[in-house]
Amino acid sequence: MKVVVIGAGRIGKLHAENLAYRIPGTSVIGIADVNQAAAQETATRLKIPRVATDYHDLIGLPEADAVVICSATDTHTDIITAAAQAGKHIFCEKPIDLNLGRIDRALEAVEKAGVKLQIGFNRRFDPNFRRVRDAVIRGEVGTPQRLHIISRDPAPPPISYVKVSGGIFVDMTIHDFDMARYLIGSEIEEVYASAAVMVDPAIGEAGDVDTALIVLRFANGVIGSIDNSRKAVYGYDQRVEVFGSEGSIQTENNYPNSAIISTAASVRRDLPLNFFLERYSESYVNEMKDFVTAVEEGGEVPVGGFDGKQAVVVGMAARKSFDEKRPVRLSEIS
Amino acid sequence: MKVVVIGAGRIGKLHAENLAYRIPGTSVIGIADVNQAAAQETATRLKIPRVATDYHDLIGLPEADAVVICSATDTHTDIITAAAQAGKHIFCEKPIDLNLGRIDRALEAVEKAGVKLQIGFNRRFDPNFRRVRDAVIRGEVGTPQRLHIISRDPAPPPISYVKVSGGIFVDMTIHDFDMARYLIGSEIEEVYASAAVMVDPAIGEAGDVDTALIVLRFANGVIGSIDNSRKAVYGYDQRVEVFGSEGSIQTENNYPNSAIISTAASVRRDLPLNFFLERYSESYVNEMKDFVTAVEEGGEVPVGGFDGKQAVVVGMAARKSFDEKRPVRLSEIS
Amino acid sequence: MKVVVIGAGRIGKLHAENLAYRIPGTSVIGIADVNQAAAQETATRLKIPRVATDYHDLIGLPEADAVVICSATDTHTDIITAAAQAGKHIFCEKPIDLNLGRIDRALEAVEKAGVKLQIGFNRRFDPNFRRVRDAVIRGEVGTPQRLHIISRDPAPPPISYVKVSGGIFVDMTIHDFDMARYLIGSEIEEVYASAAVMVDPAIGEAGDVDTALIVLRFANGVIGSIDNSRKAVYGYDQRVEVFGSEGSIQTENNYPNSAIISTAASVRRDLPLNFFLERYSESYVNEMKDFVTAVEEGGEVPVGGFDGKQAVVVGMAARKSFDEKRPVRLSEIS
Amino acid sequence: MKVVVIGAGRIGKLHAENLAYRIPGTSVIGIADVNQAAAQETATRLKIPRVATDYHDLIGLPEADAVVICSATDTHTDIITAAAQAGKHIFCEKPIDLNLGRIDRALEAVEKAGVKLQIGFNRRFDPNFRRVRDAVIRGEVGTPQRLHIISRDPAPPPISYVKVSGGIFVDMTIHDFDMARYLIGSEIEEVYASAAVMVDPAIGEAGDVDTALIVLRFANGVIGSIDNSRKAVYGYDQRVEVFGSEGSIQTENNYPNSAIISTAASVRRDLPLNFFLERYSESYVNEMKDFVTAVEEGGEVPVGGFDGKQAVVVGMAARKSFDEKRPVRLSEIS
Repeated sequence: MKVVVIGAGRIGKLHAENLAYRIPGTSVIGIADVNQAAAQETATRLKIPRVATDYHDLIGLPEADAVVICSATDTHTDIITAAAQAGKHIFCEKPIDLNLGRIDRALEAVEKAGVKLQIGFNRRFDPNFRRVRDAVIRGEVGTPQRLHIISRDPAPPPISYVKVSGGIFVDMTIHDFDMARYLIGSEIEEVYASAAVMVDPAIGEAGDVDTALIVLRFANGVIGSIDNSRKAVYGYDQRVEVFGSEGSIQTENNYPNSAIISTAASVRRDLPLNFFLERYSESYVNEMKDFVTAVEEGGEVPVGGFDGKQAVVVGMAARKSFDEKRPVRLSEIS
Repeated sequence: MKVVVIGAGRIGKLHAENLAYRIPGTSVIGIADVNQAAAQETATRLKIPRVATDYHDLIGLPEADAVVICSATDTHTDIITAAAQAGKHIFCEKPIDLNLGRIDRALEAVEKAGVKLQIGFNRRFDPNFRRVRDAVIRGEVGTPQRLHIISRDPAPPPISYVKVSGGIFVDMTIHDFDMARYLIGSEIEEVYASAAVMVDPAIGEAGDVDTALIVLRFANGVIGSIDNSRKAVYGYDQRVEVFGSEGSIQTENNYPNSAIISTAASVRRDLPLNFFLERYSESYVNEMKDFVTAVEEGGEVPVGGFDGKQAVVVGMAARKSFDEKRPVRLSEIS
Repeated sequence: MKVVVIGAGRIGKLHAENLAYRIPGTSVIGIADVNQAAAQETATRLKIPRVATDYHDLIGLPEADAVVICSATDTHTDIITAAAQAGKHIFCEKPIDLNLGRIDRALEAVEKAGVKLQIGFNRRFDPNFRRVRDAVIRGEVGTPQRLHIISRDPAPPPISYVKVSGGIFVDMTIHDFDMARYLIGSEIEEVYASAAVMVDPAIGEAGDVDTALIVLRFANGVIGSIDNSRKAVYGYDQRVEVFGSEGSIQTENNYPNSAIISTAASVRRDLPLNFFLERYSESYVNEMKDFVTAVEEGGEVPVGGFDGKQAVVVGMAARKSFDEKRPVRLSEIS
Repeated sequence: MKVVVIGAGRIGKLHAENLAYRIPGTSVIGIADVNQAAAQETATRLKIPRVATDYHDLIGLPEADAVVICSATDTHTDIITAAAQAGKHIFCEKPIDLNLGRIDRALEAVEKAGVKLQIGFNRRFDPNFRRVRDAVIRGEVGTPQRLHIISRDPAPPPISYVKVSGGIFVDMTIHDFDMARYLIGSEIEEVYASAAVMVDPAIGEAGDVDTALIVLRFANGVIGSIDNSRKAVYGYDQRVEVFGSEGSIQTENNYPNSAIISTAASVRRDLPLNFFLERYSESYVNEMKDFVTAVEEGGEVPVGGFDGKQAVVVGMAARKSFDEKRPVRLSEIS
C-alpha cells in the first residue's frame, strides 16, 4: 500500500516514520508541507521519494492508495474532499474541522466517492483503554453506570496556538469525548461543563479555559465525567474508570520503568511518561495498522467520519454549557 | 470524664465501646434507647451502670459531663437543646436535622449554654484523608484546583430507611460534602447534581436516587466532584484526589491485608474492607478522643455546629439542582 | 482472667496496656520489675493495684491465673519454672533462653505442671502473614516450593544490647525462623548462613553480624531464604513471599496511609511504619487474645514451647553455619 | 551496516526482524540455517536476498560487516572463530559455549582479529534493570549490600532441550549471573547453590534441577541471591531488588496493561507478559542498536567476551556447589 502524507509537523513525521519503519508492506511515496524544508527533512531521513508544497501534487499521483492528513485543522475538509474526489482512502487527524457545515460536506464527498475515512483518535488503540472497552463489552463490570476520565496535559500549548485551536473542548477534550463514546458504546445526549482559568491568565485572555470538569449523560443512562487540566506538573495524566453493576475497571498512567526507590525521604518512583508521543507511541502504530488493514482487506475503519463529527458536536455543546452555565443537550447543536 | 450515650443502635454501641475500652480516662455512666432491651444488652456487655428508655433520665444526671447522641435523626435537635440546657457538652451524629430552622434553634441553644458541640463527621479523622488535608495545608500540591471524591457503599440500606433518610444527598453524600469542605478549606458556593436510579428501582419509587455525580464550586475557585453509588459490589469504595498547581495527592481504599496472589488466572488481592465500621474503626476512636480532649482541656472541637449545618445546606442544594436540572447556588437555600 | 506481668520495659508495658484496655474481661493485678520506678509508673498509669521488684511476690498470688514474662532473656527459664510450679499459665517473650538445656528443663516443668505456655511470636498474628499462611493451608498457591522472607530493622540496637543479645540469629532472625516454620508448616532441617558486617563495624567488634542471607531446607523439600539487615533507612521492612506449584502470594509493608503524592519531582508515598510497635500493634493484641482464650476455654495455645525452642535451635545452626562456612543440619545442634 | 544472521530459530528470526525493520540504516543481507526451509521462510518474509545452509557461505561475503550468531550453542565458538578470521564484527547469543577452553580460544581469535564481539545478554537493556543499574551507579541507594533477583520462567523447556542445555545454571541462570554482575558492578567470588527438582521429575531424570536458590558473594562484599524456577504458572517473573546503605530499589514485572478490575470476587489484574519475547522485546532492539552503534562509531560493545565467559564460570561454580553441597569459590573453576 502506497501512502502520501500531508503535513510534516510533529504528527505528520510520526505517522510517516511509523508507515516507513513499523508497518510491514506499506511505503510513503510522498510528503507535502507548505514549509518545504520540513517536508524535505523528513523525506530525506525516511527516504521518501517525492516532496511537495502543494498537496494536490501528491493527491494526484495515480499510484497513491491513501492520503494521511496531518496539516492544520482548517485545511482538513478541503484535503478530504480533494482526496475523496481523487478516489484515495483517507486518514485524517482530529478534529475534522471546527465548522459542522464543512464537516458535513466533507463527509458527503467521502460517502459519494466510496472511499474509506479514518479519524485519528489514536487513544482507542492504547492497550489500557482497549482493555477497558473489552471489559465493558464482555460485561466484566456488569452494566456500566459511571465513567470517569482523567486527562491532563503536562503543560499548556503556546498562547498563539490556544487562540486558533477552537478552545480546550474541541482541541483537547475532543479526545476524551471520543474515548467516552468508545468506552461506553452509547451516544452522549447532554453535557454540563464547569470550567475555569487556573493555569495561566493568558489563556483566559485568549478567550479559553484551562481547567474543566465536564458531566456527560449518555443515551443508555450512564453518567460520565471528564477531568481536564492543561497542566499537570508531574506529567501526562491519562486514566479512566468505568464503574458498573458488577464492578469497576480502572487504568493507571504509563511509566518509563517500574522501579520503586525507598530511601529515608520517601518511597517513590519516576514520573509517568511525559506526553502523548511517548505515552501513545504504540497506539499511533496500532491505529495506522488498522487503517492499512481496512484499506487492504476492505473492512470497516475502526473510527469513522461520524465519530469525528460527533466529538466536535460534543465539544461545541460543552462550550455552550460553559457559556450559558447550564446543561446543554446535543440536539441544541446544529 | 463521664459520658451518657443516647441511642443503642449500631453507632451508639460503637461509641459506647470506644469510650469504655479504647479511650483512657473516660467512662460511660448511662445508656438510653427507646428499645430498652438494646440499651440493656450494651450496658451489660460494657458494664454501664445505668439504663434508660427516656433520655431525660440520663441528661439530668449531675455527674454526667457529656452526652453522645446516636438516636434517630428527628430526635437530635430536641436532645441537643435539652443537653445544652442541662449544661452538658454534646457529641451528635450527623445529620443534625433535616430542617434548617430546627438546626438553627439547636445551635442557638448550644451557643447560649456555652457548651461544646461536636458533629460526628468521623471521616475527617481517617489517616488517609487527614494526610490529604495536611498536604493541602502545607502546599505539597500547590494551590488546589480540583477535588474528586469517590464514595460508594457496598449495598443500599433497606427501603424503609431510604424513605425516612431525607434522600441520598443528606444521608450519604453529607459525609462527602463535609469531606470536601474539610479537604479544600473553603466554602461550597454552587452545586450541580446529575443523578439517577441505577441500583434498585424501589429506591426510585421511594423518591430517591442511588447514583450521583455532584459538581461543586468553592469560594476559592476549586472545582469539586463527588461520585456516589449505593452499591459497589466489591465493597466500600472511599477514595479522594486533590489536584493542584504543584501536583496531586490521592488515596486508595483500605484492605484487610496487603497480600497479592498470582495464579494462572490472575494477579489479585482480597476485597477492600467492606463497610464503614471496619474502614473507619480508627477514625471513630480518633474523633471521640478529640472530643474528650476538647472537653477536658477546653479547646475547640474539630467539627462544630456550623459544619454540621453547612453539610445539610449543601445536600439540600444538591437535591434542588437534581430536581430543577440546573446548577444551584447555596445562597438559594434558606 | 487475672494476670501478673513480669518486666516493665517496652514490651511489658505494651502487654500490660493491651491486657488492661483492649482485651475485654482480663485484668492486670500486678506488675514486677527490678527497676521499681518503671513498674510503678506503669502501675499508676494503668491502675494496676500491686507493684513488686521480686517477681516471686506476684507469682505467689493465689488469685493470679497467668503470668506474662517480659523480663530479660536470662531470667525467662527461672520464671517459667517458678510460675509452672505455682500452677500459673504462662506467656513468655522470645527467646525462651539461649541455652538448650535450660530450655528443656523449663519445658519439662511446664509439662509436669500441666499449665499452658505460649511464646511471644506475635508476627504469626499479623493479618498479612496470616493471610499467607491461610493461602498455603488452602492450597491457593499449590504445593509450596520457595519461601522468601525480608526482615529488616530501621536501625540497629545499642551495642550494649548487641553484646548480650546472643547475636542476630537468635535475637532478630528468630522471629523469621518461627515465621518460616509457621508459613510452610514443616520443620527446618538444614541451614546455610551467609552474613557480614555492613552497617556498623562496632557490631562486628562485638562479635556479631548485621546483614545476613540465610538459606533453609525444610523437611517437605521447600527451599527458604531470609534476608536480614539491622538497618533499612526507609523503615521497618517486613515482607514475605511463598511461591508454589500453582502460584505465588506475597505481602507488602504497612504504611501509615495510602496517599500517593505526584509532583514535578516524583510519584511518592510516605515511609512504611517505622518499627515493630506500630507495625505489629494489632498482632500483639491478637496473640494475647488467643492466649486468654486458650486459658479460659481450655484449648491449645497457638505457639507452644516446642516452637519457642525450635527457633533457638535454628538460630544456633545459622551461627554455626556462618562460623564454619558450610550448610549445617539441625541434627548437629544439641 | 550489512549483517548476516546465522540461525533461523526463534531468536534468529527476532534479531533478523529487528535489524530489518526497527533499526534504521542496517540491512540483513543473508541468513543461514542447517534447516533450509526455516532460513528461506524468514528470508522471504523479511526480503533477505541470500539464504544458506552452510554459514561459511555468508561469512565469506565481502560486503558483510557483521555476523549475528543465533545457532546452537555447540556451534558458537567455531562460528566466532571463523567470523573473526574473516574480519567480521560479531554478535553472539549466550552462552558462548559450555567449555572454558573453547571459550578462551574463541576470545583469543576475536582479540587477534581486532573485531568486536558482543554477547546477547539482552536483559541489561531492559528499562527496569537499567534504572536499577543507574541507581546503583549514582548512589541513589548508597553502598549496595544485598541483591535479590527473581527469575522464573512460565514453563520448562522440552526435556530434549534440557538434556543438551548444560543444565539450568548455564542455560537459564546465566542471564541472572550476568544481571548480578551488571547491577552490582563487581565480580562474583563465591557461589552456594541450593536446588531441587520440584516442577517435573523428568528434569531430574535428565540430570538437571528446576528450582534453585543461589547465594553469591561479590568482591565488593555484596551478598546476592537468585531465585529460579522453571515454572511460574502466572507467567514470566522477572524482578530485582538492590538494597543498600541509603535505601532500596526494586522493580516489578511488566504487564500487558495497567487495568485493575474490582468485582465481588477480587481486585485483580491481567497476568504479566508471559515470556521473554514479549517482556524483552524492547531490550532486544536496544542491544542490537548498541551493537550497531559500537561497530559504526567504533566504541566499546556494552557486553563483551569476558562478560560472556564469566557468566559461564559462575554457572559451573553453581553446579559444583550443588553437587558438593558447599560454597564454591570461582577460583576453583578452571
